[in-house]
Amino acid sequence: MKPLTIVKIGGKVTDSRAALYHFLDAFASLPGLKLLVHGGGKQVTETGVQLGVRSTFVEGRRITDDRTLEVVVMVCGGSINKTITAYLQSKGCDAIGISGADGNVITATKRPVIDVDFGLVGDVVSEGVNCDLLNLLLNSGLIPVVAPLTHDGCGNLLNTNADTIAQEIAKSLSRQYEVQLIYCFEHRGVMANPKDSASVIANLSQEDYHNLSTAGVISGGMIPKLENAFQAVSRGVRSVVIGHASELSDLTRGKAGTTIKLKEV
Amino acid sequence: MKPLTIVKIGGKVTDSRAALYHFLDAFASLPGLKLLVHGGGKQVTETGVQLGVRSTFVEGRRITDDRTLEVVVMVCGGSINKTITAYLQSKGCDAIGISGADGNVITATKRPVIDVDFGLVGDVVSEGVNCDLLNLLLNSGLIPVVAPLTHDGCGNLLNTNADTIAQEIAKSLSRQYEVQLIYCFEHRGVMANPKDSASVIANLSQEDYHNLSTAGVISGGMIPKLENAFQAVSRGVRSVVIGHASELSDLTRGKAGTTIKLKEV
Repeated sequence: MKPLTIVKIGGKVTDSRAALYHFLDAFASLPGLKLLVHGGGKQVTETGVQLGVRSTFVEGRRITDDRTLEVVVMVCGGSINKTITAYLQSKGCDAIGISGADGNVITATKRPVIDVDFGLVGDVVSEGVNCDLLNLLLNSGLIPVVAPLTHDGCGNLLNTNADTIAQEIAKSLSRQYEVQLIYCFEHRGVMANPKDSASVIANLSQEDYHNLSTAGVISGGMIPKLENAFQAVSRGVRSVVIGHASELSDLTRGKAGTTIKLKEV
Repeated sequence: MKPLTIVKIGGKVTDSRAALYHFLDAFASLPGLKLLVHGGGKQVTETGVQLGVRSTFVEGRRITDDRTLEVVVMVCGGSINKTITAYLQSKGCDAIGISGADGNVITATKRPVIDVDFGLVGDVVSEGVNCDLLNLLLNSGLIPVVAPLTHDGCGNLLNTNADTIAQEIAKSLSRQYEVQLIYCFEHRGVMANPKDSASVIANLSQEDYHNLSTAGVISGGMIPKLENAFQAVSRGVRSVVIGHASELSDLTRGKAGTTIKLKEV
């Protein structure tokens, strides 16, 4: 199987043009087949404020009403997606920016209301990733740049967490590619001592994770990210690496960040 | 050569959701290969106002400063493009929304300043349309939905008139396809009597156009539209039809609107 690198870049990196361009330079230089998924984060909140749309968060997730969705579509589907694409093009990287609606690439259903009504938030359906379209693009030398938006096939766009989109694409494409999934964010990886950025754990097993989260060393936003990572490797993704956006090249080579792999048996 | 229908839908139609969906229903039903180009217009102005960005127009063209471009990218590249794509997907039409930067599909240069500095406005360069990418999409059963944005290959997005984009794509693809280019707007076509909507001229020759514009019957925004149309047919486009967005099916069959063809010799 051919190797494929799937990189997810978070909102905090896309907020700073300088950091974003630094990251994109490294992304453009990665060899082989690759795909980028981006978030929105603060820019969505800020543009929303300017438009009089206030973001409400429950458990760290944005409640998406009609007007919030409109902002997410403008900022993530428009501004961030097209800025990234145009920049990558200038670096000789034949990027094509898409949302989940484009080419029917990711189908989702509106999240059912249990305790919280998250509004127009999409959960990717089983077999909801259109691998044929992604294969067509990848095999034609294109680099898909995916915005955190899905659609329900009934004409509605839905806001979907970018980590989830990256994981779903990675799992689906791992049937045809040897997938390395890289989560880039503002920390150097999972740290044994949260106050010491040099204490990055190079390799994290599920057992280590269990022990560290029980001990409270791993907490907050890292928990869903790691749950996501372990789910990905249990479903065919070769490895997941979590680390700082400024170290992309090293992350892909296992020289930085925290690597999560299925335990060798 | 295979027939290909290229439709351009103007800002006034995209402003009304009901009119837009009615148009998109008709577009989804068109047989054969097709491609849609859309404008932005009033929504760009309105979102700009909400964000404190005022639009300035010279000779009917928007002056595009940094902040205006940002609004155009959000509204046209994001909101309108993704709304259209998601709706078409729900109608069984495998749409893929793109800007000129995506897949390097349309390269432009910033318009040189002569009398007016239009700002970040792009003029499509010679051979600036990436026919290989459009062929790849069309031949894979996808329907490109093109936003009025180009890029300069140096990382900059540029605002580009949607009529021009439609014409440039039509001319370029007419080497490989029998192209019919349809401009949909809020009038029923070119009228012999501007006050009588029943006076639509079914077929307009260059000679008729010259006479009618000299007599002042054709004026205003219709002039660049028709100049555009005559240039397209002189450069290989089989026919151009101008008419009302609510009559799309009839326009494609020559049963409504004004048709412009090269004079048979």
